[in-house]
Amino acid sequence: VSSNPDASRSRLIGAELDDPIADLERRARERLPQSIYDYYAAGSGHETTVAANVAAWSTLRLRPRVLRDVSTVDLSTSVLGEPIPHPILVAPTASHSFAHPDAELATVRGAARAGALMVISTRSNVTLEELAPAAPDARHWFQVYVMRDRGWTRELLARAAAAGCTALVLTGDTPYVGRKLRPSMATLRVPDAATANRPSAAPADELASEQDPSVTFESIEWLREESGLPVVVKGVLRGDDAQRCVQAGAAGLVVSNHGGRQLDGAIATATALPEVVDAVGDSAEVYVDGGIRSGTDALRALALGARAVLVGRPVLWALAVDGADGVATMLEQLREQLWEAMSLAGAATIAEITPDLIA
Amino acid sequence: VSSNPDASRSRLIGAELDDPIADLERRARERLPQSIYDYYAAGSGHETTVAANVAAWSTLRLRPRVLRDVSTVDLSTSVLGEPIPHPILVAPTASHSFAHPDAELATVRGAARAGALMVISTRSNVTLEELAPAAPDARHWFQVYVMRDRGWTRELLARAAAAGCTALVLTGDTPYVGRKLRPSMATLRVPDAATANRPSAAPADELASEQDPSVTFESIEWLREESGLPVVVKGVLRGDDAQRCVQAGAAGLVVSNHGGRQLDGAIATATALPEVVDAVGDSAEVYVDGGIRSGTDALRALALGARAVLVGRPVLWALAVDGADGVATMLEQLREQLWEAMSLAGAATIAEITPDLIA
Amino acid sequence: VSSNPDASRSRLIGAELDDPIADLERRARERLPQSIYDYYAAGSGHETTVAANVAAWSTLRLRPRVLRDVSTVDLSTSVLGEPIPHPILVAPTASHSFAHPDAELATVRGAARAGALMVISTRSNVTLEELAPAAPDARHWFQVYVMRDRGWTRELLARAAAAGCTALVLTGDTPYVGRKLRPSMATLRVPDAATANRPSAAPADELASEQDPSVTFESIEWLREESGLPVVVKGVLRGDDAQRCVQAGAAGLVVSNHGGRQLDGAIATATALPEVVDAVGDSAEVYVDGGIRSGTDALRALALGARAVLVGRPVLWALAVDGADGVATMLEQLREQLWEAMSLAGAATIAEITPDLIA
Amino acid sequence: VSSNPDASRSRLIGAELDDPIADLERRARERLPQSIYDYYAAGSGHETTVAANVAAWSTLRLRPRVLRDVSTVDLSTSVLGEPIPHPILVAPTASHSFAHPDAELATVRGAARAGALMVISTRSNVTLEELAPAAPDARHWFQVYVMRDRGWTRELLARAAAAGCTALVLTGDTPYVGRKLRPSMATLRVPDAATANRPSAAPADELASEQDPSVTFESIEWLREESGLPVVVKGVLRGDDAQRCVQAGAAGLVVSNHGGRQLDGAIATATALPEVVDAVGDSAEVYVDGGIRSGTDALRALALGARAVLVGRPVLWALAVDGADGVATMLEQLREQLWEAMSLAGAATIAEITPDLIA
Repeated sequence: VSSNPDASRSRLIGAELDDPIADLERRARERLPQSIYDYYAAGSGHETTVAANVAAWSTLRLRPRVLRDVSTVDLSTSVLGEPIPHPILVAPTASHSFAHPDAELATVRGAARAGALMVISTRSNVTLEELAPAAPDARHWFQVYVMRDRGWTRELLARAAAAGCTALVLTGDTPYVGRKLRPSMATLRVPDAATANRPSAAPADELASEQDPSVTFESIEWLREESGLPVVVKGVLRGDDAQRCVQAGAAGLVVSNHGGRQLDGAIATATALPEVVDAVGDSAEVYVDGGIRSGTDALRALALGARAVLVGRPVLWALAVDGADGVATMLEQLREQLWEAMSLAGAATIAEITPDLIA
Repeated sequence: VSSNPDASRSRLIGAELDDPIADLERRARERLPQSIYDYYAAGSGHETTVAANVAAWSTLRLRPRVLRDVSTVDLSTSVLGEPIPHPILVAPTASHSFAHPDAELATVRGAARAGALMVISTRSNVTLEELAPAAPDARHWFQVYVMRDRGWTRELLARAAAAGCTALVLTGDTPYVGRKLRPSMATLRVPDAATANRPSAAPADELASEQDPSVTFESIEWLREESGLPVVVKGVLRGDDAQRCVQAGAAGLVVSNHGGRQLDGAIATATALPEVVDAVGDSAEVYVDGGIRSGTDALRALALGARAVLVGRPVLWALAVDGADGVATMLEQLREQLWEAMSLAGAATIAEITPDLIA
Repeated sequence: VSSNPDASRSRLIGAELDDPIADLERRARERLPQSIYDYYAAGSGHETTVAANVAAWSTLRLRPRVLRDVSTVDLSTSVLGEPIPHPILVAPTASHSFAHPDAELATVRGAARAGALMVISTRSNVTLEELAPAAPDARHWFQVYVMRDRGWTRELLARAAAAGCTALVLTGDTPYVGRKLRPSMATLRVPDAATANRPSAAPADELASEQDPSVTFESIEWLREESGLPVVVKGVLRGDDAQRCVQAGAAGLVVSNHGGRQLDGAIATATALPEVVDAVGDSAEVYVDGGIRSGTDALRALALGARAVLVGRPVLWALAVDGADGVATMLEQLREQLWEAMSLAGAATIAEITPDLIA
Repeated sequence: VSSNPDASRSRLIGAELDDPIADLERRARERLPQSIYDYYAAGSGHETTVAANVAAWSTLRLRPRVLRDVSTVDLSTSVLGEPIPHPILVAPTASHSFAHPDAELATVRGAARAGALMVISTRSNVTLEELAPAAPDARHWFQVYVMRDRGWTRELLARAAAAGCTALVLTGDTPYVGRKLRPSMATLRVPDAATANRPSAAPADELASEQDPSVTFESIEWLREESGLPVVVKGVLRGDDAQRCVQAGAAGLVVSNHGGRQLDGAIATATALPEVVDAVGDSAEVYVDGGIRSGTDALRALALGARAVLVGRPVLWALAVDGADGVATMLEQLREQLWEAMSLAGAATIAEITPDLIA
């Protein structure tokens, strides 16, 4: 495993390869201060889960079909009933102002241009009210924590609904923030990431803006009722948890280990995905993030039963390198790669990406 | 995994080893422009399948027999009813003029001298009509795509039959050409590889000479009827596909992932081979290519049920290094190595190369 | 595997990481003479078991739970009926005077400050009578060998009981001391490690102070009767041995391979633990040592059924770097890491650390 | 895998280790001309089997027992009814004059001093008649090929019996000599290794002294009848072959791949051993060679059912470094290591080395 897990596969056989996605990380690292790069790239602890996420997709060998009519390949699908042109979503990530002066405004524009549904983070540097007009026709979901200050959470839900977000993504794996060990981050002053979406009557107590470590499955129903929006739970890695989420009212699940930033040693998402898919059957939609770095990875995830994939760090690298244009280009490359992988695997539609494609 | 997968095994224990097959690649790389070397050596994407092909044979451990009478070892066998002196075939590869001024003329002569059946590529730089007389007594098959211009395809079939080709090899895994990521190839101007075999009344539209991504299993029967020749489908990696090919009229199958040049992440051919052999039973012959770099690899392939093996890149390296002589010598070395592996494994005939030789 | 197994995981992805536990080893190595460092760090033979211990914990992937109330996380538990604030114990190790002038006095004080039960070694450089007052409120167990001179052993048992030790830990895996191969140790003059606890009427024969290679399971009952204390057997790696120990009167078992210092090639303790837990059921308590280098490792061990973990070498590194303060700080860091791992795994109490947390 | 498989394990964790057996190879390599070193060290082909032999023992993890009475550890055993003081035998290897001016005379003396039964090679540089008096009280077996010239073979059998050899070891895996790829060996003029034991009326035809590739299982009975000695077949890697050997009259089997010098890619002997042991049950004795480099390896082999182990290359390195003294010292070190491994595994006799010691 190299120092750059995103790029590691491109050096598998020692040849220099021009992987446009991996290359973005290299270029972003050159531009960003070390501490900012590390802030985005780091995992918790020994970063074994960061590495495992990327590696786990690679180890899934594919069983392509031959002699299928792939003269047209259709990537369109839907999530929670909403039609989308392709199953590549933008994962919620915090503090885009570290990467680009336009912060989430650029990300929203780039994602919209590429037709990618974006999950806006609570910890964004631009308010929900500013982001919505930036891409009026795009689809957005809103990522929430249940904060210690329930009033703030409630206000956020109302604002997200008003801004046109069509679903809530509840992060379930972060009762506390996992400890990172990269030395450069010791000197990083993370600005109050929650400032932008802070309510008008912000509590003086900073603690109030932290996620509440006592929340349980009941919060799913509470969020749904407060917002009137379907709730997706992010961070699920087990079948039993998935079932409890669905029983508690979740409409969808993101199989995720928070990009390896919470419990170091947690299983790779590619490993957890089949168990979760199996556990929920048709009762909820299942998405996945963590280590998706190519269209072939997306094909693998869909073959294992994911309805869509979410991409996190590559969006940040693209944003750092070229703002909204970078984000749009990167997402279009991923879509193009998925198109190619489908055509070479003999899958002309998303529905034809079935488990038998995996060895 | 080294930068040179073909040679990697010779450095397994750190000692310098004089592997004549691996050495050819080193010498070819020294002679060829980087972009040409890369054009031949590259796989698609991260080249994981290129590496997996070579590695998969190595991991198959052998269970040699003792105290068998191997005073004579007979390598002769047959493919599609044609007797051949040994089961090592030349895989179809494009554009031999990059490697040697005599292009496919040299390859055909070298293969004939070594008694190796050669599969001539549609994308050759020498016409079928010129190649046939170059080795009048040799056996040839002809590799075809179904082109967008069916008329051209039909004309090619007639010419192949007229030139004495005794079977067609339909490439089934290339509805589109897989994307390669080696930087040097960006500067490579691949000449129209199809020019040589272009019909007299060539369509102005370049697209017409591309393979048709809409072809399906029905094309097998169409090719058979148009040409009167048995059809072998190349690119099969799954038992179900193999069965559908046979039901559609295929006489043989090449388990292949196009040398790792189409869907990156596809399973190694050594992994796919047993499933395909098992699926078709006696209803068709099964051959295999991909990563065969020694007589021991050929022994492994035959033990897993392949009737013959096809060798691709080593032919190109041999051609680049020493033209027809190089090709003949390399193929004879492989045959000699297979002879030795059989004798040391206690298999005096091809029929005695049975699955129990693999652990 | 690096030259520093304790630190190896921190370099998994090539990034520098500030792992406070791994860093202690680096700093201790800088301070200690090579032969002393090697004396502590070495395993027997090719040191494969040393490396395997550390690696085995890492390979256990975790299945964290989401949406559990972890607003309070309680690490308290008990061993042999004694309440302890957390399940991290100090393993018995010899000759602390090599690491620090205050020797075991410093270790005892540091452990007490961190609330860690310490297992005092027979081979300590400070007498039992001096250690007891150094941490009057702390809990101690006493590690014993059955010596060739049974009279000495009997005297030691009486002294241990008088000094307030509440259990005996019988080292069962050291009929002879495993051979170490590090060259620097050839020049190390290990002082008679047993001098401190040598009885008033010490036999002239050095051999008398050596462990007796003829002892069997009967010694468990003998030790229990002589001392009136419960007996824990350390060094058990098999279910059948564990059952025999319990039948012979053991109250607890330490799954251990002596930190890889006895039979090189012995299985990693993480591998042996489930078999032992399964074999003894509720009939005895099971603890484990060997390669525990983080709170996440401790979580893994408890999930596999250990009631507590023992930490050996990191205590020595901490002692070498900063005496009693170093020991206390290191143990508190481990406790803090276990707290974090539990909260992120959705386990609010030790009882909630169940086998389903391991993939 | 390093360039020196024998030493590779000593660098597993990066620390320098003084392994006396591995060190012999280093010292021998310094003394011997490269081509001689390579002649002994080489395997056939890519030398994957050489590396696999050594690695396979290492991967077998041990399950030591505790609290057994190991105050005395008895290594004595028997082979084919002959009592021997320990189960470590000297494997037959050719041309000891390359390593030491006293050639096999020194080896025989060193082996005798260490109480090790030696298998004398047909391809020795000293005649049987000279070797016997060199160690009059030692036990010897004689390794034979069935030569193309049966008369010569018959004469050799008579001479071996006359010289006091008590069993024949028929090499069954060498109908032809496997090809080696080390470049230095191209310049090595191997003297006629068979000269010493050539019959008085030597045929002019060199070919006559080569092994006969047509021999089968019937040769076992022929050898037994001609010589009146029990026959052990060396080179068996499969249960079915083992059964056929026993049915054909073999009294013993050596699980062997000729030290990786015949079919490259053959399974490691540690992998083949259990199948052979299982197949023959009590009907024959099973021994093993290949990659045994420590007493712990010997313990593993015996635990898997071998009655004794044969050591090849380390004898040559010891011979090159220090003649008969070197051979004796090395064999005594192995015996001492086996003694230690048994004591730490809780096995006081050879009979107590049972399969449950392997995980």
